[in-house]
Amino acid sequence: MNLKQHFEVMLPEIEKELQRQVVRLDAASLRPFHEMLTYHMGWTGEGAGREATGKRIRPVTVLLATASAGGDWKPALPAAAAVELIHNFSLVHDDVQDNSPKRRGRPTVWSKWGVPMAINVGDALFVIAYQATMDLSKSYPAESVVRAATILHEACLNLTRGQYLDMAYEKRHDLSLEDYWQMVGGKTSALLSACIEIGALLGSAGETEQEAYRQFGYHLGLAFQVQDDILGIWGDEAVTGKSTASDLVEGKNSLPVLYGLGRQGQFSERWKRGPITAAEVREVANLLEREGAKTYAGEIAERETQTALEFLGKANPRGAAGESMLELANMLLKRNQ
Amino acid sequence: MNLKQHFEVMLPEIEKELQRQVVRLDAASLRPFHEMLTYHMGWTGEGAGREATGKRIRPVTVLLATASAGGDWKPALPAAAAVELIHNFSLVHDDVQDNSPKRRGRPTVWSKWGVPMAINVGDALFVIAYQATMDLSKSYPAESVVRAATILHEACLNLTRGQYLDMAYEKRHDLSLEDYWQMVGGKTSALLSACIEIGALLGSAGETEQEAYRQFGYHLGLAFQVQDDILGIWGDEAVTGKSTASDLVEGKNSLPVLYGLGRQGQFSERWKRGPITAAEVREVANLLEREGAKTYAGEIAERETQTALEFLGKANPRGAAGESMLELANMLLKRNQ
Repeated sequence: MNLKQHFEVMLPEIEKELQRQVVRLDAASLRPFHEMLTYHMGWTGEGAGREATGKRIRPVTVLLATASAGGDWKPALPAAAAVELIHNFSLVHDDVQDNSPKRRGRPTVWSKWGVPMAINVGDALFVIAYQATMDLSKSYPAESVVRAATILHEACLNLTRGQYLDMAYEKRHDLSLEDYWQMVGGKTSALLSACIEIGALLGSAGETEQEAYRQFGYHLGLAFQVQDDILGIWGDEAVTGKSTASDLVEGKNSLPVLYGLGRQGQFSERWKRGPITAAEVREVANLLEREGAKTYAGEIAERETQTALEFLGKANPRGAAGESMLELANMLLKRNQ
Repeated sequence: MNLKQHFEVMLPEIEKELQRQVVRLDAASLRPFHEMLTYHMGWTGEGAGREATGKRIRPVTVLLATASAGGDWKPALPAAAAVELIHNFSLVHDDVQDNSPKRRGRPTVWSKWGVPMAINVGDALFVIAYQATMDLSKSYPAESVVRAATILHEACLNLTRGQYLDMAYEKRHDLSLEDYWQMVGGKTSALLSACIEIGALLGSAGETEQEAYRQFGYHLGLAFQVQDDILGIWGDEAVTGKSTASDLVEGKNSLPVLYGLGRQGQFSERWKRGPITAAEVREVANLLEREGAKTYAGEIAERETQTALEFLGKANPRGAAGESMLELANMLLKRNQ
């Protein structure tokens, strides 16, 4: 079974488990509230469907880790649902915090129902995620459930730390690379790392292997984020010169930008003068590339990828699921494109 | 040891445990974030101190329930911290949702640091609450920890339901008493009920007793809310005619108001015409009283109080802690004033 086949088998089960968890809110007077949750999850309302649900990559990593550590992945489904619900809780709150009107091509929860309702929708998804985690006790000893919940809580606290740093850094031009890694460690790596560690735990990996899985997830997250930073500036859509999708227009403190600021050259001067317009995007991207930021970020992405794969090797992943985990890592890092 | 003495012994321990939990956020770059949390908890910033922390009634109920069920209350401290953190998470988000500039006489988190930061502060308190819950595993079997977390999650989901209903009902004049009980059951009773049930669980109460403790907490919460509704209209501050503290001015869907609306008399007519001004407060309060709302609400508060105390009797509370629990119930219900 390859990655595509794993996705095909796992996705419907993940969706079923998610729906089983979210259906907890079903009294008549609460129906509109439930509707907000299912709308955000991509199941109901305008534009519902596969495009609206997102890729569900995180829950798949949980299940692949469980299977590649030698366990049966089906009993781990509540954990898979939990991480996806955590991800979605953070998206709902992020959208409020960033004032984003759209998510996956559809109006965000806050733009449909207002900020107060959206805060509450995020809170509810957060709680349901933890309820799902406790459902693991149907198939696993209580000690493992407590351990899984503890890993998830630590990741969530790191999410709030990363989110704080992201917001606090918004208007600063003096960030160090250390600041960047701390922010990205919280915002991107913490949850992915927890997915894979929990999966390994539920697959009964030994302690050393669990730690290797965790590190694999962490560095995979970092590599993925740096790759995303590169695409956000030099990807197809970002350099058309018309797109406001460029991280340069958004003023995002990405790794190439921080590198460029550190060089204190022309890019740095331009950046500090104020927002980059869509018309300038191509020119500023070229400038940043000439100052070495693209090469630098590419090297870092490569370094983190290598580190991730070394840890995956140490984790000793087994069978078809192990192969698919490697395939997923490569897919996430776009190394096969 | 009476209730006052229990408070004196327990409060410093609760505060110590809370601070131990919240200190998890302590890296240098995260210090301002940590500051937001400790500010809200009442420990730092302008006006810090006992007035700013709130009464910490919920954690005390956890510990009293543990002790009155026959257990040692000290190992239950992480649970006490957890419920207080949950309460505070909900306050931070509530203040954003209600657009409240002040809380316990101090500027709210959102009014000091903005809405995006406040959402994140609430999220962090929420996570730390669950981390505290998992810390119970130092002293209790994992099965009890999972059970305590499950009770807490259910209460939190009910909080979000109550919050949804509260927001959804804001502009409606056609609410039934059933709507009211559902909202109050979520907003006020769910957490108090969970406090007392978790306390009983950790004190090793039998299943029947645990259920009685839970019901005691639930009805105590309802009685407390109805009492609060009465004071919000006919309490000293509410009827001065100058205070905007009156629930009538705020347009709150309290029990007396719903009763008055159901009567479809003069009060109902006036209420539906638009906001009550501070100048009208005394007159409208008198009108509502003449239509029987105060008597009705008083009877309901009495009924719920009796039900609560019956369940407390069935819970078979022991020793000085049991006495203090009864004293606390009476204090909350202002029956001794």
